[in-house]
Amino acid sequence: MSVAKEMLADYLHVVWNDGDVEACDRFLMPTYTIHHDPGDPWDGQTLTREAFKERIRVSRAPFPDQRFTIVAMLEDGIQVAVSWTWTGTFLADTPGFKATGKPVKTSGITIYSMSGDRITGHWQVTDRLGVFQQLR
Amino acid sequence: MSVAKEMLADYLHVVWNDGDVEACDRFLMPTYTIHHDPGDPWDGQTLTREAFKERIRVSRAPFPDQRFTIVAMLEDGIQVAVSWTWTGTFLADTPGFKATGKPVKTSGITIYSMSGDRITGHWQVTDRLGVFQQLR
Repeated sequence: MSVAKEMLADYLHVVWNDGDVEACDRFLMPTYTIHHDPGDPWDGQTLTREAFKERIRVSRAPFPDQRFTIVAMLEDGIQVAVSWTWTGTFLADTPGFKATGKPVKTSGITIYSMSGDRITGHWQVTDRLGVFQQLR
Repeated sequence: MSVAKEMLADYLHVVWNDGDVEACDRFLMPTYTIHHDPGDPWDGQTLTREAFKERIRVSRAPFPDQRFTIVAMLEDGIQVAVSWTWTGTFLADTPGFKATGKPVKTSGITIYSMSGDRITGHWQVTDRLGVFQQLR
């Protein structure tokens, strides 16, 4: 596995799955741009690393046991595309939805922009309708 | 632009935008596998070229003026990832929804599997919730 792919697999595991938010310091550039991510409250914004850490905390709160599983990765030296599936138990309320205590699953594809071995941002599409239908 | 990227740009333009369904003969392998495409009626199926042409006809019918616009492409020699935006006017009823005559837009990312210069299938995620909210 290439350095970039290994780093991204590590990032998803350590930061997003295990919730070690401070580990962002070794994965991200000082700013991170969310180029496109429909439904994400930070869609279109460029965040400082501290603001990005807050985004992770807020995103993980309703699904504290969430797990991203990588399906495939491809890279061209500038960007890395990652297809993934995701599961989590809906344990805390989120705006508009009361926690059900039930497992939820979805999938998405993320194209990460890289600068050397650090992430500078992403373009992402997730199956939001799949989640929406499971939350109701 | 590489041969694979050029071919995919051509495919999206000629087949999906302009509706020249018969042109599939020069873009696709004899069978096409929809590995993952939540909400697509053919999700998980392997289609003959004729069945795939029917999928295009059915998919295009509610939005006959639909346009995919490519945002970015990256490839690694085996797969090509394409991020895209999409617009179409909702002109014919689709199951569960009556045509509104209004423009709809969405976005998605598709990872195409290639065999030489032909497409063998895809893994795709689209922002279905975005569409759903515009159809109601």
